[in-house]
Amino acid sequence: MRGVIMYGPGDVRVEDRETPTIEAPTDAIIRVTSACICGSDLWPYRGQDDYGWPAPMGHEYVGVVEEIGADVRNVKVGDFVVGSFFASDNTCEICRAGYQSRCVHAVPMGALGTQAEFLRVPLADGTLVATATRPTPAQERSLLAASDVLGTGWFAAVAAEAGPGKTVAVVGDGAVGLLGILAARELGAERIIAFSRHADRQALARSFGATDIIEERGDAGMVKVKELTGGLGAHSVIEAVGTQESMMQAIRSTRPGGHVGYVGVSHDVELPGLELFFSGVHLHGGPAPVRRFLPDLVDLIMRDLIDPGTVFDLTLPIEQAAEGYRAMDERRATKVLLTF
Amino acid sequence: MRGVIMYGPGDVRVEDRETPTIEAPTDAIIRVTSACICGSDLWPYRGQDDYGWPAPMGHEYVGVVEEIGADVRNVKVGDFVVGSFFASDNTCEICRAGYQSRCVHAVPMGALGTQAEFLRVPLADGTLVATATRPTPAQERSLLAASDVLGTGWFAAVAAEAGPGKTVAVVGDGAVGLLGILAARELGAERIIAFSRHADRQALARSFGATDIIEERGDAGMVKVKELTGGLGAHSVIEAVGTQESMMQAIRSTRPGGHVGYVGVSHDVELPGLELFFSGVHLHGGPAPVRRFLPDLVDLIMRDLIDPGTVFDLTLPIEQAAEGYRAMDERRATKVLLTF
Repeated sequence: MRGVIMYGPGDVRVEDRETPTIEAPTDAIIRVTSACICGSDLWPYRGQDDYGWPAPMGHEYVGVVEEIGADVRNVKVGDFVVGSFFASDNTCEICRAGYQSRCVHAVPMGALGTQAEFLRVPLADGTLVATATRPTPAQERSLLAASDVLGTGWFAAVAAEAGPGKTVAVVGDGAVGLLGILAARELGAERIIAFSRHADRQALARSFGATDIIEERGDAGMVKVKELTGGLGAHSVIEAVGTQESMMQAIRSTRPGGHVGYVGVSHDVELPGLELFFSGVHLHGGPAPVRRFLPDLVDLIMRDLIDPGTVFDLTLPIEQAAEGYRAMDERRATKVLLTF
Repeated sequence: MRGVIMYGPGDVRVEDRETPTIEAPTDAIIRVTSACICGSDLWPYRGQDDYGWPAPMGHEYVGVVEEIGADVRNVKVGDFVVGSFFASDNTCEICRAGYQSRCVHAVPMGALGTQAEFLRVPLADGTLVATATRPTPAQERSLLAASDVLGTGWFAAVAAEAGPGKTVAVVGDGAVGLLGILAARELGAERIIAFSRHADRQALARSFGATDIIEERGDAGMVKVKELTGGLGAHSVIEAVGTQESMMQAIRSTRPGGHVGYVGVSHDVELPGLELFFSGVHLHGGPAPVRRFLPDLVDLIMRDLIDPGTVFDLTLPIEQAAEGYRAMDERRATKVLLTF
């Protein structure tokens, strides 16, 4: 089968890979119908993450079940399915508490590489969610978004306790931040402030529910949030970048007692204890337990109530994956969808 | 009036201070009947906090209202009252959300110095809670604990989401940690693990509700918590120290998706972003909004349902305040009560 391999920073190739087979009775094999490139794939692409090269790439996927192991009960051959970037049993104590990304049996799908024609999904019963009917192309795009960026943005909004009466600020105008805006809107937020200095992303942000745009970042951005919130700061702040500046911008934009939901993978971040202490904020985040939200997200998408798939602004056949990485690296694309 | 002044690290004196008077119509003057020495008073005593010397000391107090400003409505002359270490209006948006320690008009009582015969309490209506009857000596001691250490321990337990079915671990066996145990018990926690290596404090911990004691600290302590919790970690961890080691011990002892409530004032703490990210914990803390809890705590105390005052293990007349500081510094006393 064809699949994407990264050989080192900036070196993305599409090659023949061995087609996966059932290894455990809880596995399923799916034929991937769409995959995509994640902002987090840019960290190794830019040499900012230490990887073992060569590495199969990708952790987002939708597709059709081709084969199931003997113990799989919840999905059947022919089902259209979506799963998260961590396989999870969905039965352990941590899963039942809603933290499937930290399942005691979690398997990172990124290690398997979903930017490929076929994919082995461990713990299929706990990982995959099937649609009742075959999705339309637009629905399929949105389901692919649910696999990570929508699920992650949704978790960030929930972690930030976005909801009715709340002012929510969103740090980061990549796909996760943009879909965090959509999530905050769906959760009933009263006002949604997007930090963005790019006209195209500002337009997407508004389409997803942003009511205010702030172009400044860092402490200047924080000052603007304070101006918009009677000097107090936002109730809820979504952090979807993962840098020192973005984390401090998020914490400082939050009122005392407010909530920061952070999902940008922290890179070289050190939080100053004394400032955090006196900020009085709630801090919660990490690898999003997307599986917690998938059934609801699939339902919203299949009923055409949300259209997160509009976050994909470049679609390429998998053979052109290298161009997809370049486009995202150069910010010519927000989110790249790969077709097979 | 007599009051405690710190002239520099280790240099505590009791001197004549000017008796305070009403400065604003929202002020009250109280005759302090008991005050105490806080673990946080040891930071400047040990030269670990930069103070402007000489500094009036103390931020915990109970007493009798002597005089009220023209606008004070909620307390009257002769009332027995307790207040928190931050004066607060209790009406602003931040107060109404339960974060009175970050009231937009907050006044730190430590700047006024409560280890003194008389005290001016700003924003008396929003700050003070009066008892219906004159407390017994044991009740008065417990009300004094409510002024900070009980209220702070209670906030930590609430921030850590201690409750029915939860395993709660408590880092720190000072007065705040010990009363965090009491709070966790009152909130219905199923199991309470105290970290302590001192026999006397272990006994107090058990008297407040600890079900397990761990003598190890740091990562060795974390390993013990994991052993007691099926490898997962505690649901809720109270951090009541404020050092790098104690914060990391708290975070690492918490299961993914669990809650850390931290109230030790952070000193030279830097939280590593990537580890925090992958820990998946909730982190909340800061200067406790004790005023949020005071009405309930006063009620529990005046009905003799809790006896947090047993945390005081040394009582001295104010003239011997210097000996009180020494006893706490040398860990000969957990918490020192000063009488007038």
